[in-house]
Amino acid sequence: MLSDGSISQAVYNAQTRLTAISSHLRISKPKVVVCRDLGPDVMPLLTKRDDIEVVLWTEDRVSDRQWLLENVKGAVGIVIVFSELVNAELLDAAGPNLKVVSTMSVGYEHIHVSELAKRNIRLGYTPDVLTDAVADISVMLALMAGRNANETMGIVREGLWPKFIWAPFSLCGPQLSTSGISPSRTVGFLGFGRISQATLARLIPFGVTDCIYSSNPNSSASSKKKRNEKLLEQHPQLKSVRAVDVDTLAQESDVLFVLVPGGPSTRHLINEEFLRKMKKHSVLVNAGRGTVVDSDALAKALREKWIWGAGIDVVEGEPDVGKDHPLVKEPRCNILPHIGSASFETRLAMATLAVDNCLAGIVGQDMPAELDVKAL
Amino acid sequence: MLSDGSISQAVYNAQTRLTAISSHLRISKPKVVVCRDLGPDVMPLLTKRDDIEVVLWTEDRVSDRQWLLENVKGAVGIVIVFSELVNAELLDAAGPNLKVVSTMSVGYEHIHVSELAKRNIRLGYTPDVLTDAVADISVMLALMAGRNANETMGIVREGLWPKFIWAPFSLCGPQLSTSGISPSRTVGFLGFGRISQATLARLIPFGVTDCIYSSNPNSSASSKKKRNEKLLEQHPQLKSVRAVDVDTLAQESDVLFVLVPGGPSTRHLINEEFLRKMKKHSVLVNAGRGTVVDSDALAKALREKWIWGAGIDVVEGEPDVGKDHPLVKEPRCNILPHIGSASFETRLAMATLAVDNCLAGIVGQDMPAELDVKAL
Repeated sequence: MLSDGSISQAVYNAQTRLTAISSHLRISKPKVVVCRDLGPDVMPLLTKRDDIEVVLWTEDRVSDRQWLLENVKGAVGIVIVFSELVNAELLDAAGPNLKVVSTMSVGYEHIHVSELAKRNIRLGYTPDVLTDAVADISVMLALMAGRNANETMGIVREGLWPKFIWAPFSLCGPQLSTSGISPSRTVGFLGFGRISQATLARLIPFGVTDCIYSSNPNSSASSKKKRNEKLLEQHPQLKSVRAVDVDTLAQESDVLFVLVPGGPSTRHLINEEFLRKMKKHSVLVNAGRGTVVDSDALAKALREKWIWGAGIDVVEGEPDVGKDHPLVKEPRCNILPHIGSASFETRLAMATLAVDNCLAGIVGQDMPAELDVKAL
Repeated sequence: MLSDGSISQAVYNAQTRLTAISSHLRISKPKVVVCRDLGPDVMPLLTKRDDIEVVLWTEDRVSDRQWLLENVKGAVGIVIVFSELVNAELLDAAGPNLKVVSTMSVGYEHIHVSELAKRNIRLGYTPDVLTDAVADISVMLALMAGRNANETMGIVREGLWPKFIWAPFSLCGPQLSTSGISPSRTVGFLGFGRISQATLARLIPFGVTDCIYSSNPNSSASSKKKRNEKLLEQHPQLKSVRAVDVDTLAQESDVLFVLVPGGPSTRHLINEEFLRKMKKHSVLVNAGRGTVVDSDALAKALREKWIWGAGIDVVEGEPDVGKDHPLVKEPRCNILPHIGSASFETRLAMATLAVDNCLAGIVGQDMPAELDVKAL
């Protein structure tokens, strides 16, 4: 699936550089520890090189911590996923050779960034490449929440269709597309980065008329104005694009997309107070981070019909979300087990980027996607 | 929800005319039989008139046949849904006053059209108003089929998320949106009417590059050429729009939408032979009629992985689709219980149109949406 052409220039540059280092220092090959098998399309980018030694955790489960602590000794690079905790313990075990940690994820909650900064270790991550996959899931969840996918699929799955009594308005939900008798739709975004804007673009042909968002409070009024104007130019079908406060976002959104990063500053931004202000026929989509939404408040909102439905790809405390979780019990809650980026194309791009970041980082070159750990 | 302004002119015209007929003939008010309660927004269009007598089946289930045969006697109009069989028996019971049958549906499989033609009875139906609702469901099903919605929601529902072992490519599916390493997408349509074209429009921002379709074999090459050119003009992002034969449709579609009417001429067009020709990562969406797809063949295709997944809103023999149905047993088959038009906005528009058709039909005026029973 991956053509040679898509292997970045960085890989080739890195190869040359590494060979030079090895022969100059007359040392054993630099070691890269890879904590998950990245599959037959990506692993050869590492294993077919003769200038590095690859140590791979081959099992299809989270790498054993003891294994990792032992094998990381002397490594120049580590390729990880979100399940590997990168803390002082791990970095101390690695020792002074370590130049780069490369995570196959856009989030970095599992990484103690300040410990990397202290040691001058660089951090690679995989943003942007998952924008389209998550925007696709966001649109899917918006449609599913409005049109009662979980509830109606349940009728079929549980064998109730043969006995179902049809009525002119049975199983109805609010329509995402505008229509003659309902000619306007306002979509709201909590967080208005790349994924939100890619989601908005996908919703234009559904007849969405107005876009409101609440984003980084630090960005200036003039930069927001410029952005709004650009979006109106891009999507002439839109009547308005506005940066609004959180209250307005709650009150005016027909569909609200939660697409902000996690962390303490966004924790439970969607709480009971917010949900009580929403429209009765509105739906909530969370494809960002579980911590942003108070699960108990959302379950209550669905149970007491403050809002119509929800579509969520992330849940606070995941994956410890069992049958008894209050949201799992709500039929109007459509829940996916965090598959936002889970398309072959996107995971392949993420794995490739993680490898490219690692290879560039260990030779001190520009990484295709680096997080500035000193600025964080 | 329904403003006075949206009640069509036909209703007012009909009122005037009916009053004239009544006073001229000195008869009791013309009777309209309504086989389902059309809800508080639409029923007043009938019940608040003082020039007709409305006889309503008030229960929230299929109207009792005996009740219908008795009450239809002497009626000038009948408003039905798809569960009322309109045959010679019913029309004979109604007698010579009957001028119009108005169905709140786009399909008319439940109506013996030739019997209407024989008796000069007109037929109203509700096309067009459901285009957007069904296009929305079609996009939703395409996304769900690709991204394994049924399977992955099952993981959460069954309490398996806490124990789920993540891997870089677990739960992945083919991405609907194009991406850097996969820059083209061909969507195919079996049937290329309004709903197909509305579905295509919604897919443009996902990066769809090519559209192929197989439609009415009677339309000329020049009319198809004209249509293709018009679509390319409408959607400059598309590289190609082509009318193709059924083999090409099977072989080239990444997502195939089945959106043809039912009936003998389209029965099992999607069969084992067709499915075997499809791409391994392709998905099939059926939001048209269940009879078009051979259920056993589709179940086999999913079980043996000839195709990636399916999203279907209709199943042959519905609603008699129980737990043991071969498609219900396939985790890659996302099944909805025929809710394509089930949005409040659309059902309201359908019910209003059904009433408007009836009122116009009984006074011999132009109906907003009439099927020419003599031409069928």
